[in-house]
Formats: sequence, C-alpha cells, structure tokens
Amino acid sequence: FDITILGHVTVVIVGGTGDLARKYLWQGFFQLYADQVGKGHTFSFYGGALSTTEKGTPLLFDILKELACPAELSVERCALVKDQFLHLSKYHQLKTTEDYENLSQQIKQQLGQEGIIEAGRLFYLSVPAFAYADIAEKINNTCRPPSEAWLRVVLEKPFGHNLYSAQALDKKLSGQLKEEEMYRIDHYLGKQVVSKILPFRKENKKLLDPIWNKHHIERIEIVLKETLDAKGRIQFYDQYGVIRDVLQNHLTEVMTLMLMNLPANLSNSEEILQNKLNFLASLQHVDNSNAVVGQYQAYNGEVQEELNKTKDYFSLTPTFAGVVIHVDNAQYEGIPIFMTSGKALDERVSYARVLFKSNVFCVQDPNNVQCKSKQIIFYLGHGTLQYPAILLSKNLFKPELVSSGDWKEVTEYKDVNVLGLQLSDYYIQSPVTPREAYCELISHVFFGRKDSFISAEGLLASWEFWTPLLEGLSRVFPRVYPGGVDNGNLLNFQLKGHQVAFSHEALVNVINPGAEDNFQVMQGKYRSSEMVSAWAQELVERLASDLLLAAEEAIREEGQFHLALSGGSSPVALLLDERCVPHTESGSNFRSIHDLLLQHIRIPYFNIHPMPVHLTQRLCVEEDGGPTLYEKEIKKHVNGSSFHYILLGVGQDGHTASLFQDTKLENDEENLVILTESPNKPHQRMSLTFTAINRARRVGVLIMGKSKHELVSQLSRIKGESSKYPITKVQPKSGTLIWYIDYDALLG
Amino acid sequence: FDITILGHVTVVIVGGTGDLARKYLWQGFFQLYADQVGKGHTFSFYGGALSTTEKGTPLLFDILKELACPAELSVERCALVKDQFLHLSKYHQLKTTEDYENLSQQIKQQLGQEGIIEAGRLFYLSVPAFAYADIAEKINNTCRPPSEAWLRVVLEKPFGHNLYSAQALDKKLSGQLKEEEMYRIDHYLGKQVVSKILPFRKENKKLLDPIWNKHHIERIEIVLKETLDAKGRIQFYDQYGVIRDVLQNHLTEVMTLMLMNLPANLSNSEEILQNKLNFLASLQHVDNSNAVVGQYQAYNGEVQEELNKTKDYFSLTPTFAGVVIHVDNAQYEGIPIFMTSGKALDERVSYARVLFKSNVFCVQDPNNVQCKSKQIIFYLGHGTLQYPAILLSKNLFKPELVSSGDWKEVTEYKDVNVLGLQLSDYYIQSPVTPREAYCELISHVFFGRKDSFISAEGLLASWEFWTPLLEGLSRVFPRVYPGGVDNGNLLNFQLKGHQVAFSHEALVNVINPGAEDNFQVMQGKYRSSEMVSAWAQELVERLASDLLLAAEEAIREEGQFHLALSGGSSPVALLLDERCVPHTESGSNFRSIHDLLLQHIRIPYFNIHPMPVHLTQRLCVEEDGGPTLYEKEIKKHVNGSSFHYILLGVGQDGHTASLFQDTKLENDEENLVILTESPNKPHQRMSLTFTAINRARRVGVLIMGKSKHELVSQLSRIKGESSKYPITKVQPKSGTLIWYIDYDALLG
Repeated sequence: FDITILGHVTVVIVGGTGDLARKYLWQGFFQLYADQVGKGHTFSFYGGALSTTEKGTPLLFDILKELACPAELSVERCALVKDQFLHLSKYHQLKTTEDYENLSQQIKQQLGQEGIIEAGRLFYLSVPAFAYADIAEKINNTCRPPSEAWLRVVLEKPFGHNLYSAQALDKKLSGQLKEEEMYRIDHYLGKQVVSKILPFRKENKKLLDPIWNKHHIERIEIVLKETLDAKGRIQFYDQYGVIRDVLQNHLTEVMTLMLMNLPANLSNSEEILQNKLNFLASLQHVDNSNAVVGQYQAYNGEVQEELNKTKDYFSLTPTFAGVVIHVDNAQYEGIPIFMTSGKALDERVSYARVLFKSNVFCVQDPNNVQCKSKQIIFYLGHGTLQYPAILLSKNLFKPELVSSGDWKEVTEYKDVNVLGLQLSDYYIQSPVTPREAYCELISHVFFGRKDSFISAEGLLASWEFWTPLLEGLSRVFPRVYPGGVDNGNLLNFQLKGHQVAFSHEALVNVINPGAEDNFQVMQGKYRSSEMVSAWAQELVERLASDLLLAAEEAIREEGQFHLALSGGSSPVALLLDERCVPHTESGSNFRSIHDLLLQHIRIPYFNIHPMPVHLTQRLCVEEDGGPTLYEKEIKKHVNGSSFHYILLGVGQDGHTASLFQDTKLENDEENLVILTESPNKPHQRMSLTFTAINRARRVGVLIMGKSKHELVSQLSRIKGESSKYPITKVQPKSGTLIWYIDYDALLG
Repeated sequence: FDITILGHVTVVIVGGTGDLARKYLWQGFFQLYADQVGKGHTFSFYGGALSTTEKGTPLLFDILKELACPAELSVERCALVKDQFLHLSKYHQLKTTEDYENLSQQIKQQLGQEGIIEAGRLFYLSVPAFAYADIAEKINNTCRPPSEAWLRVVLEKPFGHNLYSAQALDKKLSGQLKEEEMYRIDHYLGKQVVSKILPFRKENKKLLDPIWNKHHIERIEIVLKETLDAKGRIQFYDQYGVIRDVLQNHLTEVMTLMLMNLPANLSNSEEILQNKLNFLASLQHVDNSNAVVGQYQAYNGEVQEELNKTKDYFSLTPTFAGVVIHVDNAQYEGIPIFMTSGKALDERVSYARVLFKSNVFCVQDPNNVQCKSKQIIFYLGHGTLQYPAILLSKNLFKPELVSSGDWKEVTEYKDVNVLGLQLSDYYIQSPVTPREAYCELISHVFFGRKDSFISAEGLLASWEFWTPLLEGLSRVFPRVYPGGVDNGNLLNFQLKGHQVAFSHEALVNVINPGAEDNFQVMQGKYRSSEMVSAWAQELVERLASDLLLAAEEAIREEGQFHLALSGGSSPVALLLDERCVPHTESGSNFRSIHDLLLQHIRIPYFNIHPMPVHLTQRLCVEEDGGPTLYEKEIKKHVNGSSFHYILLGVGQDGHTASLFQDTKLENDEENLVILTESPNKPHQRMSLTFTAINRARRVGVLIMGKSKHELVSQLSRIKGESSKYPITKVQPKSGTLIWYIDYDALLG
C-alpha cells in the first residue's frame, strides 16, 4: 500500500458501556475510524467499565451492533468498515490498578507482535466526576505510552462545583496529567454554529467593526430553553442546578466567543485563550441583585422521591436562572447581556442574539424590512427554525459566507417567525451536513485541536466569575413555576439599572405541588401561612375534603367536632357571626346556612347553635346580653373554647366574620362574642371575636372570585397586622391557618 | 338684573369675510358670546374687509346665518342667542385710515349713547402677514380704546420668513403695539391635547421623573403627516415650505412643552416663558446634515401653473422634512428627537410619542403587555384612533387623570392598532367634548391667558434655531416623491450618529412629472442625463413617440433621418452591431429586425443597411475588411457620420452594442466600425464604436426587466466611466442621451 505509516492509536472509553458512550461516543469513534481508515494510522478501541469481561463484552457488543452508517459511505463500504471496527473493538474490565496495568500490557504486546510503532493513547473518561482523580492516577501510573507517543485524556463537566472544588480537582489531576494531555469537553464548542462564531466575526470584520459596540448594540441575549425536566437525574442535578449545568460553561463559552477580542490568527490556540481570559476578566461582578432564579413546581417532589427525603425537605436548587451581565470595557459597557436557561419551559430552543438599536424613522411602509428589528442570531437549533444557522436581518448587511465548503446560504424560506422576524427577512447560513457535537469534538481530540476544549485557566476564570453568585444564591428561595406554557409571564424579568428582578410579582410562592399529579390544585405560602389554590370547583372540593379529614380526626380522637361557620356571601355551615335579623328571615346567616346545608344533612338539632340575636322580642339589644349567652354556650360545649375548625370569608374591604375596620376591640381579649356594627345593611351584627377565632385548632379562610383579586394582592404585601384589614388579625395562637384562594382571586 | 356690569367688549375681525373667518373665527366668537352672555359683559362684533359696505354686508350675513349651535345649548336657547349675536354683528369697510377712524367713532358714539363703559377692543387680523404692519399702525393711530380699557390684537403665522424678517416684523409691530397687546396664535396651542401636556407632566410628576431622561427614553417622535397637497395654495406655500409651515411653529411648540423644565406654577406665564426659552437655548445646532427634505412629484407642476412659471422652472421648496434634533443637557443628551411633517403622504395623523427603552427579557408569553413597547403618546387626532388623547402603555403606569372635569378615561377599546400597540394595551385619556382649537384660543384671548400664545421672545428663539437650517436647505434639491401610499419607503430616514439620511438610495431623482396628469410616466435624471421611466408598455410607447418626433424633426429640417438600431434581446430597427452569422439565419440581428420591424413597414430597400458580416463566403474575417466597408457606407449616407438617433440596449454585464468589457478599443477613436468578440455565443461580432455612437444627435438607452435592476442600481452609483461597464462610455459629444428604464428595472 502507498500509505505513510503513522503509527497506532489506542482509544479507551472508560465507562464504555454507559449512557453517553451508547448515545454519542461510540458513534463518534466509529465516524473517526471511517474518516481515518486507510490514511496511515492503525487503531484499536477498548470499552472499559467496572464489570467483568464476561458481563461487559455482550453489553458492548449490543452497543456496537447498533452503530449507524456515516452518511458519506455507501452501504457496501459501511458494512466493510463496520466489520473492521467491530474486530478492532473489545471490552476490558477497568476497576483496579491491575486492570489498567493489564490493559497497557495488552497494548504493548499486540504492537510488539505486529511490529507497529505507537502514535498515541486516547482515554475518554465517561464516568462521574468524582472518579476522575483516581482514574487519572491509574493512567499515569500504569498506562502511559512510550515517550514518543502522545497521551490524551478526555474529561467532561462537571469540573468542580465552584472555584475551590475546581481548583482542588485541577490540582489532583495536574499531579497526574500534563495540561496538554487533558481535553476538557464543553460539547457546545463542538456545535457547528458555535465553532463558526469566530470565523463569522473574522470574515465580516469590515462590516461588523463599526456596529459591534455599545453605540449600536442595544442588548445581547444568550438563551437555552428546555421543555424537559430533571426527573430521573435528580441525584446529579440537585447538586448542580441550572447555573452550574448550563450558564457557567455552555452559555459563558458562547458569550466569550461573541465578545472576546478577535484573534489575529484563528488557529492560534494561545492567542485565543489569552483573549478569552482577558474578556472574562473584564466582566462586572455579578451577585444576587443581577439574577433571578426559579424552580419548576414538580421538582421538589422529585427531589423528595429520588433522594429519599421526607415531605418537609425543600431543595433550593434553581432549575431556571436569568442573569444580566455587563462588560467593563469601552467597547461594550452599558450593554445588558441577558443570559438565561431553564427546564420545564414552554419551548426547546437555543440561541445567542445581538439586537441592534433602531436608527430608522419610518415615515411610511412600516412593514418594510428597513423598519424591522436589526439583529444577528447564532441559532443553535430547535425552536421554530429547527436547524442550526447564523441569521442576519437583511437591513444590516449581506454577510460573507463563513466558509465555502461545509456551510451554505439558505434562500428557501419556510413561513416561520424567528425572534420577531419572518425567515425571509434574514440572510441565513447553515451547515451543509448537520454533525453531532461529540463527533466533531472526537475528531478534534484526534487532531489535537486544543482550542476546541476548555483550558484549566479558562475553566478557573469562569468559576471565578460565577462562584460569588452561586454562593449568594445558595440562600435564596427560587420562584416556583408550574412548567410549560402555564408559566405564562411568571419568569419574565427586567432590568433596573444594572440589576434585574422578575417583572411580575408572585403573589404567592408555590413550593409544593398538590397531591394530584397535575397542577390543578397548587399548594404554597401566602402571608407566611399555608395556601391552597385551584379553580373554584376544585378548591371547594379540596376545602370539603380537608374539613372532612379534620372532622374525622377530631371524632377519632375526642368523639366530637366543633365547627364554626361564617355568614356573608362566601359558601356557608356553628355560626361565628350573625346579622341581627330573625333567624327565619332571608338576611339571616342562620337561615342561609340552614337552606344551603343543614336541611340537607342529618345533624341532631341540639348540635346546631344559632347565635341568639333575637331575644325578648327584639334584635341585638345590649341589655339583653346575647353575646354573654352565646359565650356561655360555647364554653359549655367547646373544650377550652377552642373550635376544631373555623371557616372564614373575607369582604372586599378586608372584614371577616362581622369584624370591620371600625369595630372597637377594647375588650376583645376577654370576650368571645360581641355586638358590632357593619357599614352595610343590616348594620347590627353579632360576631365571634379574634380571641375566639385565634383559639381555634384550624382556621380556613376562603377567598373566591376576580372581585377579590385586588384585596389578595394588597394583603400579600402587608406584613403582620393592619387595622385597615381586619382579616390580618386572624393569627391562630397554636392552631394552623390555611388560605383557600381560587385562581380568579389569586391571579385576577 | 343681578349682574355686575363689566363693560363692553368690541370684537373686530379684520378679514372678516375671508376663508379662516368663515371656517373658524365667527364660530369661535359665537361660542364666546354664548358662553359669556349674561355674565356682565356686553358685546359688539364687526367683520371688516376691503369691500364696500354694500358688498360686504351680504357676504358677512351669508357666513353668520350658517353658524352652528354650541352643543350645550338647547335649540330654543340657541335660536335666541344666535338672533342676538346677528343683531350685534355688522360689516364695516376697513381699507383706509378714515375707515378705521370711522369705526372707532362709531364704537364711541354707540357706547356714549348707551352710557356703557368700555372694557376692551379685540382686533383679530385674519389677513396676509404683509398687511400686519400697516393695520397695526392704523389701529394704533385711530382705534385705541380709552386708557382704562384693554386693546388686544390677534395675529397668526407666518410671523416672518426667517430670523431677520421676524425681527423686522417684530420691530415694525412693536412700534405700534405693546407686547402685552399682541396675541400671536399658534393654533396647536389651542389643541386640547397640546394644552394638557404640561398639566399631564405635572399630575404624573412622581412617576415620570424617574424615567423622563436619557437613561430611559429611547427616542422621541413629533409627527404631523398630511394626505393633502398644497394645490391652490402655492402662492403662499412656495414661499414657506414645510419647515416654516409646520416644524418651526407647531412641532417646535409641542417639543418644547414635552421637554422644557416643568414650571412650579402652571399658571405663571412668566415662568413658563422663561423655561421655554431655556429649553430652546439648549438645543443643538441643526444644519443640512440633520435633515432630509422631499417634494411631492406634482408640486413643481403646480408651482409652474399657479405662479405662471415656464416649464424649466424648478422650485426647491420642501413639502416633506425629517429632522433629528438633540438636546444639549444632562437630562436629555443623546436622545434622538425625530421631527417630521409632509404633504401628500399616506395618512393624516399627528402625534408626539416618547418611546422608552425595553428593559424586559421575556422568557415566555411574548404577547404579554410587559413584553410590548413602552410609550407615552400625545395623540392630536386623525390616524387610526380618530380622536385626541393621551395614551400610556399599560406596562408603564396608570396615570392620574389630567383634570377631572373636562377629560375622561377611555376604557372601551376599538380594535385598532395605534403606533404598534392595540388600544387595549394603553391607558387612555381624552377630552369629554372635542373643541376646535380656534374656539379655545378665542376664549383665551378674551380671558387674557397669554401663556396660550407665542411671545416675541419665544418666536425669535425658535427662528434662531431654525434659520441656519433653512438657509442651508435653500440650495438643496429635495427628493421627489410620488405621493400617497406610492411613496413606499422612499421617505424613511435614519440616524448616522447625530446626522440623518434617507434610508433608501433614490436611484433617480424625479424632478418633473410626465406630460400625463397621472404619474404613469415619470421623467427625471439618471447618471446626470435625462431619464424616462414607466411600466414596460407605456415606456415602449413613449420611446416610439419620441423616435417619431425625432424623425419628423429631422425630415422637416434635413429631409432625411438616420437611425441605428441595436441587436440583442432588447426590442429591436440601420444596424449598429451584428453577430457574425449569415443575415438569413435566426441568430442574426438583421434577421430579427427584419422579422420584427422591416417586413411590416414600407421602407425602401436601399434605405436598409445590414452590416457586411458575410463577405467572400466567410464570416467576419479581418482581411475581408467588413468594418471598413460599413464605415464607408455610413460616411456616404450619414452627414458627418452623425446619426440622428441611435437606440441601444444594455446587457446584464453592462455591455452595449457589441462592445464588451474586454473589447480592445485602441483604435476606437479613428474607427466607426470594428470586429469584436463576445463572451457569449456567437463570439464573433461587428459593432459601431463608441466614437460612432457618441457622434449621434440623440442616443436612447432602453433597459427593461427585473433582471436588469441590479445593473441599474450599480450604474447609478458609478460616476463617469468605468471600464467594467462599457455602457458608461456612451457619452454623446454634442448630442443628448436619454435613458428609458422600465419600473421593473428601476425599482426591482
């Protein structure tokens, strides 16, 4: 054969039967083999894992036989190449130092027998990060190739948990491996669009230079939205969260490529690294004031389940983050960079967008392309476009094609809207053949293209930037969001100077989904107490079932259940307030409870206690002592005057029971029942006092209807008591308060 | 009666039978009378003009009998009040000094007889501005009331033509009238929305203060678009133009009210004036680089007609202007203020809009009001909304109502889009009863509210700002626009730093409409030569008619007409280039001209001169001397080898005749005919040279079809010759060149 002999390459995938290996790595190495076979190198491939050879071999074979043919090969050629590849691949147990020694021996023997020189050894560590140091030590001690051959060890995030753990990991690894031997993967750097950011900026330098600055750029957005959740991966995810999982690495790399100084030479790894480090050093410090965080509603349940936690365990790990970053240099200062990512959002999409200031005044013809927004988008995929591309609005300029061979201009426009513009409003460039990021990166490892990987310095610089924020956020409650389109505007956030905040106040923070799988009923906190919210129908059902549970529990434990029901317009059942009208008239609370409830159920007559508003033929006259009479009745029946359950409503003015803003409460502490005056007819009332209410074991407050939204919203902002809103004085001493608020009242 | 006697008021409308008086003034004074009658003043009204009493009286009566009833009066009450008003109103000739003396006498006599004291005299000068000084002198000399009564003289723009003439006018007037006696009207100050700008800012000061500055405002737009043209008013309009007519006064007043420092006391005229002057002094100087100007296409014809000008007269008066203004103070610096107005635009609308920077990042729910643009609009009327209003996008804040009595909140939303938002996205406030600006202002004159009028100082400050630009523009050719929706994007303009330019290059500037009334054929300049453009059909008809005219003229003068026709794909009739194929074959230019033209017309055989490409049985062989032969033929027939008409086409590559980019032209100066080589088949050609072409009396170049648009566009940017585009070498020495370009080729 007319081939230069370039030596033998050994590839070892540690964790070679795991998920990542199955999905991407073997396919990547198969592609590499198909690309390189017959070009001078010989290969062997090992899949290593903790299992014995007997167990591991069939597992590996199952993976290898599923490998797909590279698009550029004919069916016959592929069958041949695949057959060769399978012959060259074998399983090897890699658990103990001896296993590694044994592997190294095997490589040497084989090469010795065949008389082939060794070019290098490539170890791909597809294992949890905690195992890196140990494996690196084993490789260093037992598996180094002869000095003229190279050693490359591929690692993937997480590279630590913060600056200190990253430094510690780096120290451990660098004791075993040289920096040039380590290939830290960020698979975003293998994405075709990401790898074209610098070439694009270079090719179009002349046209970009005048506008690539604070005078022309209005904002930058770097976004990765996912619809998936973390279910099944909580073990890993809950230690990291969205900032460590996405922002610190992927999105930071994209931002850096977009804004770093353009290197004079795009193939000078040294210069690129230096420019990256300079850029990261120019970022303004970020802390809690520059970020908003969220957690999807089902997450905490998943944590409790997958981490075997009790129901009162709460994880603060964010599954959504929005951060605003500013650069401290003359070129970019003042431009807000919105970086955001989240799980359980409405759409799967990833892009980086530079939005330019509008400088056009459109006298007419507002649909003209000149009148639309000016933007450059590095579109990584999914979303409405569905393929990776670089898009420039046509009112900017026609860009040079980033490179003639593997990228093409798209001129057939689907009828879709991409970030505010129709596709036909863009110049579009896209890769000729979509290639998987891992495939690209495996080839880059083989060719030693270190600029496609994370350097130790770059990694630590990024951690240095993110660590203070991560520490600050470790004590912040993320805003809970329902997930998917139901998130509505809940996660939108906005600048206030250089800081950010959610755009919409969350009236409540829902930290616990209801018992139901769906989110028809949600549970959370309102005014520091428990809250249940749902649509009216579900809410009332939930309230009924809670009442029943409370009654069953009381009967079980004490043989009796004391319930006090309110009047007013809230759905109504022992009276806690009463209008001073005869019980038989229609304005009477007793009459309405009787009509709605009592007449339909079997409840002994003597268990029903209407308030004595009608004594000696007259209504609520102080001298008749109605309140004292009812107080005696309560004390006689109810143990310690502590009702099992009091159900209250609230008026739009914040009154509850018949306790109004102007109700005099001087002797309230002593009395359980008083006469009051309502601003509305009938003015005279009798009511339990806050003393009586706050002795209850459970107090439920039911608020329903859009007309109560304003009130719900105001109450959420009041801390503690306010004499303006009597309901705020409902604070059970040793019992619990539960708010039942329907979605109409909660969300308006 | 129980009424304080406040004295008698005499109203004199000078020009009282003119257009403005008919349309607005008498109605305004009738409203004033209806408002004031029975409140202590007595009134008399005079309509004065140059006509005699016999002629003027019926004219005035015709106007008065048409007066409409104020909405607040019952039919009976109105009939009564109108009857009184007619009794109190009479015509009075006002031409000579004696007429004015006579009027004054009449007033005195009447009041003397009735024993009424005089409160004041109000003269409304509804006459051309050149008459102001003379009338003011007459009033001063003969019509002053007794010293305890007031004199008020109402004047309307134009107040001069620039700073110097305004100063001169001011000097003349102030010699006759005191500043407090002069009420200079800008009817925009009588518009209900304009008069509420300061109150709105005051009422909402707390919420506006944090955002009313460069950090939050992205841009400001102050716009008056008209669909009407100036036809019939050219006598006036052509002296002034849009900047003097609209920007210097109306729009400058609106800008000032929006951005001046808010006075501590809104009824302190002194403070308001001082703040206005301070604001005007803080404006950055504007010159030609900050403005774009246009003129609607029919305008120049109207000027020629109404001013009795010849067809070669060109007016440079702009009917459209777009100006960008910047303020030089810490609060507003850097905010572009787009001020624009024009006639013959697509829509009638007037508004001032403050657009705020977007500070929201919308993760989801992009249609949420928070994700839309934030703006405050002072909407003066017309457009999609149709009524005057102040609009605030709901994502800003809910404003205080500007004043409870005469303004209301609008909460019923029509389904229309106003400046990018649906009506329901705004908080809207609007006057309860729409009132005509003149009505408002007449009442303000009566109450002496000087802050609703232009002060001498304010007027001169505004002229000081605008005069340098007006002088600069006096030498600028406005861009010609067709008018209405056909303007397309032609008038859109954009910022370049603090300067502005039209967004779209005008390939041609059309300065003369075609003979037709409609704009189906337009005439203009292209590459510094005459151009005719139209849709293909009209264009060809026009070319044919021009050819015919040229032929008739030549025959009339010389008895003969020499025409040279081109080959190629352009519609084709004496040949100026030929493909080297036999004349009978289909590739032959002669053959196609024969088929298309010659065979259909009666033209003597000997008047037809095909090129001798086929000699001695072979095609275009140098030694056969075809070119020399044809040259001799030309010299023999054509006087001075100067064709009467040469009609050319152009290829997409810029070639014309058979003269290509690579054609060697060494001996071109001596030769009239040469052999050339085409990059396309058939390669061998014979062609007239540029020397021959440029000797012609007339050269027409016909370019048609969208495929030539790119070329037309490139050629428009090339000044003089370019060897890349042979067509650029067509430059008749003493003849004329006319481009015939169809709309497809011109506009793409």
